[in-house]
Amino acid sequence: MQRARAYLDSVAPLIPDADRDRTFPMEIVPGLLDVGFVRGAIPVADGGLGLSHLDSALLMEEAGRCWGSIRTTANILTLVAELLSMAGTDEQKQRFLQPLLAGRRLGWFAITEPDAGSDVSALSTRAERRPDGSYRLTGRKAYITNASHGDFGIVLATVDPDLGSRGVTAFLVERADGYRTLDRPHLPVRSVTCCDIELDGVVVPAANVLGEIGRGLSLAMRAVNAGRLNVSAGCTGLAQAALEAATDHTQNRHQFGRPLAGFQLVQQLVVDIAVRTRAARQMYQSAARLLDAGHQARTECSMAKYFCSETANAAATSAVQVFGAAGLMDGSVPERLFRDAREATIPEGTSQIQILQIGKELLGVSALR
Amino acid sequence: MQRARAYLDSVAPLIPDADRDRTFPMEIVPGLLDVGFVRGAIPVADGGLGLSHLDSALLMEEAGRCWGSIRTTANILTLVAELLSMAGTDEQKQRFLQPLLAGRRLGWFAITEPDAGSDVSALSTRAERRPDGSYRLTGRKAYITNASHGDFGIVLATVDPDLGSRGVTAFLVERADGYRTLDRPHLPVRSVTCCDIELDGVVVPAANVLGEIGRGLSLAMRAVNAGRLNVSAGCTGLAQAALEAATDHTQNRHQFGRPLAGFQLVQQLVVDIAVRTRAARQMYQSAARLLDAGHQARTECSMAKYFCSETANAAATSAVQVFGAAGLMDGSVPERLFRDAREATIPEGTSQIQILQIGKELLGVSALR
Amino acid sequence: MQRARAYLDSVAPLIPDADRDRTFPMEIVPGLLDVGFVRGAIPVADGGLGLSHLDSALLMEEAGRCWGSIRTTANILTLVAELLSMAGTDEQKQRFLQPLLAGRRLGWFAITEPDAGSDVSALSTRAERRPDGSYRLTGRKAYITNASHGDFGIVLATVDPDLGSRGVTAFLVERADGYRTLDRPHLPVRSVTCCDIELDGVVVPAANVLGEIGRGLSLAMRAVNAGRLNVSAGCTGLAQAALEAATDHTQNRHQFGRPLAGFQLVQQLVVDIAVRTRAARQMYQSAARLLDAGHQARTECSMAKYFCSETANAAATSAVQVFGAAGLMDGSVPERLFRDAREATIPEGTSQIQILQIGKELLGVSALR
Amino acid sequence: MQRARAYLDSVAPLIPDADRDRTFPMEIVPGLLDVGFVRGAIPVADGGLGLSHLDSALLMEEAGRCWGSIRTTANILTLVAELLSMAGTDEQKQRFLQPLLAGRRLGWFAITEPDAGSDVSALSTRAERRPDGSYRLTGRKAYITNASHGDFGIVLATVDPDLGSRGVTAFLVERADGYRTLDRPHLPVRSVTCCDIELDGVVVPAANVLGEIGRGLSLAMRAVNAGRLNVSAGCTGLAQAALEAATDHTQNRHQFGRPLAGFQLVQQLVVDIAVRTRAARQMYQSAARLLDAGHQARTECSMAKYFCSETANAAATSAVQVFGAAGLMDGSVPERLFRDAREATIPEGTSQIQILQIGKELLGVSALR
Repeated sequence: MQRARAYLDSVAPLIPDADRDRTFPMEIVPGLLDVGFVRGAIPVADGGLGLSHLDSALLMEEAGRCWGSIRTTANILTLVAELLSMAGTDEQKQRFLQPLLAGRRLGWFAITEPDAGSDVSALSTRAERRPDGSYRLTGRKAYITNASHGDFGIVLATVDPDLGSRGVTAFLVERADGYRTLDRPHLPVRSVTCCDIELDGVVVPAANVLGEIGRGLSLAMRAVNAGRLNVSAGCTGLAQAALEAATDHTQNRHQFGRPLAGFQLVQQLVVDIAVRTRAARQMYQSAARLLDAGHQARTECSMAKYFCSETANAAATSAVQVFGAAGLMDGSVPERLFRDAREATIPEGTSQIQILQIGKELLGVSALR
Repeated sequence: MQRARAYLDSVAPLIPDADRDRTFPMEIVPGLLDVGFVRGAIPVADGGLGLSHLDSALLMEEAGRCWGSIRTTANILTLVAELLSMAGTDEQKQRFLQPLLAGRRLGWFAITEPDAGSDVSALSTRAERRPDGSYRLTGRKAYITNASHGDFGIVLATVDPDLGSRGVTAFLVERADGYRTLDRPHLPVRSVTCCDIELDGVVVPAANVLGEIGRGLSLAMRAVNAGRLNVSAGCTGLAQAALEAATDHTQNRHQFGRPLAGFQLVQQLVVDIAVRTRAARQMYQSAARLLDAGHQARTECSMAKYFCSETANAAATSAVQVFGAAGLMDGSVPERLFRDAREATIPEGTSQIQILQIGKELLGVSALR
Repeated sequence: MQRARAYLDSVAPLIPDADRDRTFPMEIVPGLLDVGFVRGAIPVADGGLGLSHLDSALLMEEAGRCWGSIRTTANILTLVAELLSMAGTDEQKQRFLQPLLAGRRLGWFAITEPDAGSDVSALSTRAERRPDGSYRLTGRKAYITNASHGDFGIVLATVDPDLGSRGVTAFLVERADGYRTLDRPHLPVRSVTCCDIELDGVVVPAANVLGEIGRGLSLAMRAVNAGRLNVSAGCTGLAQAALEAATDHTQNRHQFGRPLAGFQLVQQLVVDIAVRTRAARQMYQSAARLLDAGHQARTECSMAKYFCSETANAAATSAVQVFGAAGLMDGSVPERLFRDAREATIPEGTSQIQILQIGKELLGVSALR
Repeated sequence: MQRARAYLDSVAPLIPDADRDRTFPMEIVPGLLDVGFVRGAIPVADGGLGLSHLDSALLMEEAGRCWGSIRTTANILTLVAELLSMAGTDEQKQRFLQPLLAGRRLGWFAITEPDAGSDVSALSTRAERRPDGSYRLTGRKAYITNASHGDFGIVLATVDPDLGSRGVTAFLVERADGYRTLDRPHLPVRSVTCCDIELDGVVVPAANVLGEIGRGLSLAMRAVNAGRLNVSAGCTGLAQAALEAATDHTQNRHQFGRPLAGFQLVQQLVVDIAVRTRAARQMYQSAARLLDAGHQARTECSMAKYFCSETANAAATSAVQVFGAAGLMDGSVPERLFRDAREATIPEGTSQIQILQIGKELLGVSALR
């Protein structure tokens, strides 16, 4: 963890310009892999480090403390690597996983569609089987992180709409296969891209089916807990960054003849960040320990996601308030944290979806439909 | 009000590009003046419309509902016009107020300094009297709205630091006098500029003293209530825009086979916006009625500022949540509202300053020092 | 209003003992009627004062500021009087309304049943028509305010379960008719009774049908807005009492060498009560003005109920916090307010029901079923 | 822990009557000691079990889940036992500690005074040294838990007001010494007593000085962390009880044709209890682990106290809301939890004191004076 922290600190000076320009310094990716990102979550047999969920999450907290665009990039690459590791053939691992872990390829993952946000059962992207066994993919994906940066991706598409969720299958698609990406500029994590993907009859060979036909959603579900945990840890890191920035500012900025730190209402703002951040950290770490102990921990991961993402928002907005006008200026730390945090309660299940997921587990009744 | 709404609706199509490019369509200023902005708050004798505080505030709600950058521009121009109307000589009104009301000049107002935010008693900008009666201004102002757009401004500076707040005096400064402005890009209301101003020995004639020597702060204080009221109304407008956007989205976006509007947790998000917006509207309107009835209403204006600015933030963040990822994309209405709202709890007295101001009035004790 | 305030202040010394002993000083009822309670909302033609909704609500704020048990008693008597005035025959008005307005009879209103709380369509109390035209009432009502104090009441029962809500009819029942009441001790408003009512084949003559057969629910609905408004005003009064108690305490209690009022965190507690109380007052008064102007104002009354009842709870819990341990002692004002406030978000539609009611109006979709 | 849970479950049927009657079933004290309460925190050498802070806290969570009056009683007895164990002479341990651990004596602890709540430096109870070395105690203590139940107590008094906090000394006082207690009925934890104590020249021998002269406050401070930890755990238990009651109710109560559990807004109420309870549990357990690892953990214990006590309040008030009117009836579980929870944010340092304590540690500046 110390190596990770040191490496992240060493790249921190790149952040202000990159975040302003909406670019990502791709040259840091090997270093990230080197200190354990992405490789951490992958078994040793597949070329990873086989870290525990807890250690992987601790890395994610460090990333979140440093820069949301690093955290998000690491999160997506980890997800892609996990899916390949869990379901990939040896050949697929050779083509996609090994180069990804070596920093030579970048991948993305596409499930969301313009008309299917929280409701994954409404996917409409088609994968038509052709006589030669290849598949022809047609549809549109939306809000896909880093699709324009990557050179391959995993697409969920249905081989038969009549099968409902049991028709959904995962496909590996390469840039050369002819998909198109369209960047959509956005408020948070500005140095990752958020893309629409057009699949206009893209043909992929049968060898590009990842896992079994019709098992795409259950494959994705196997990664969802780890994803929520990673977001939780990253949100805690963001809140920690807000705490550090606010603490520093209150000690150095003076008003009415004393440091801001000497005013009770300012202390309250900072203390509330600190207390919630500590609680958030406990939430994700205890969920990680459950996963490491072999529990499914679905409810606990949802609780962590819900709590930590709300905490990140509260922490960032309070940090801005502590800074006052200075916290609204481009390039100030609170300004960046405030933008980045706003995303947290939306992907990997909105706060509302988490509530309904947890509620269903606790109370034994779905209130969604 | 209907004319104002109609005019603002007619300029609304300009907003997305202008907001993205951080430019302000200056060609709309005469139209804004024509439907009552700025002129509304000025007595008929000085060329204004002499509207009530309530009517002025209703205009500001409309501006806030339309675009934060219009609201802020109107607010600053109104403040400058009010100060000129209250304290200006006939000659000053001829040179500055009349052209401002005619849309030919744009002014700004500078009180905040890098080391004097909420604490106006710590101002350090000097105004040295020269033998010929002119003044030499030296110092630095910070976070000054639209200073780079304007061609003149009002600067608070002290004629004698030993006099404390009783030395602070208001001066009119013209661009030709040689001040320098530096734009600082920022998160909210992106099409107004937020500027540092350098006064590096700028000389202004004695005729540019606005009001009496040593009465600069008390002059500014006379405008502070109206300023807080205008912000309150503008925040209510922003919340109203969030409500309208969220309402529309929930009715048109479907998930899990029904409109978002059919889910209880979504209804709660929208209803909480609606209820708080209604309460905010009552708060600013009742304060305005008190001002119109001749009360000082200092506490009530502070309460309105505090309540309405917190409401704007809550409303905008909930509107983003209702939209999900779509609410984070550049150019979406919630994305803009979310950025613009974040400013509200800071200028014209932070929420913390309002609490201490109200507390002092209610409890008879200052807790600030 | 001044007469009402003066009368309530004159009875205030009775509160501590009565509240502790769970008794109500019935001797004050004529005085309450005299200063306008209950009679206020009734048209002059029926022996009332024909006050506006606003004036009636202002009275209710005064009652809420004084004592929850007065407010609740007045609210129920007003409801009963309104139903009699709206739907009663001349004979019914003679028997029930006139003596009620003169302080000689006390009535109650029974809609809720053990298995039908928010869901009034699930009422199961039967009213069987007998050959002689009389009705035989069988069923059980729950949470009926002051049923044990009153000597008559209005009971909603269905003449035909197959008709659903269109079978529900209002009946006047007198104590002599043989219903039984069972007091259920409870936390808030301890000096009103909360009763179960057993109707074990109670026979009432046809002359005791109030309004039309099958129109019981729509009759009740006609009073629901006024009821919500009255609760809103009463909650505002309770919050006002919390504000006054907290203000007084912070000025007189010293810690660390100064009055509590001198601490920023204490000021925040008090100011937040004050701001929310002011907003609550605007909410109920603006709804009252809409009703007075002839609007149905259903949404606005729901908003007021929701906002004011949540405000009462927040204000009371903060007042306890300002008092510290002293605020938890039996007989202290915050202790009583805290208990009384807890009820506010439940009857006349829980906060959740208000949200769904408002949401349906705003968004055009019911999310209840 | 299972034995403790089983014993507490076995005494649970006594709670409704005892809580209503404000009596405590003293016959259960030996059983509580037997399963580890009070004895847990005391070293084996002094006759205790020498449990870790974590295990002691887990016991306290169980107590809080069962009944606030058990938790509070256990908490006070533990505090008294700890002080005796830390500072008592062998003779004092024989007279007071051993019988207390055997369930034959009950003790109390008195620091608060009518004019010294959070401000312990303002203590005015005097301990005058007499020629024979004995001390004459004169003063008044307030809000002392179980003083009327106990037969001895520890009193903080100053041997010399001019010494400030360095004059404060702890004294053991027995009922036979002649203090008087006055019960003050109160809202929460109704079966413990909250007493005023009058010390009207009570004479105690020199052998009753507990610890060193002038070290009373620092002795008390050594117990303050454990005290805050115990309250935190107890509050978590209370929140857990609220969660269990709410869960059960939503599954068994039907409205509008389905269980309450099937409504999204109800799920949200329950889920928010569950998430906060889980976070609270992590907060107290992580602080306990720090104490067990030898850290002072002052900030972490304050954070736990602040977070867990606010959680208990939020959980209990939401449980009432889930129950509706049924949750307000005397004897219902939410009604009791709601009353008991209200105390949590006040003793052992109010939430405001915790904020200032944490703020001072985090920011290095006191904002209290």
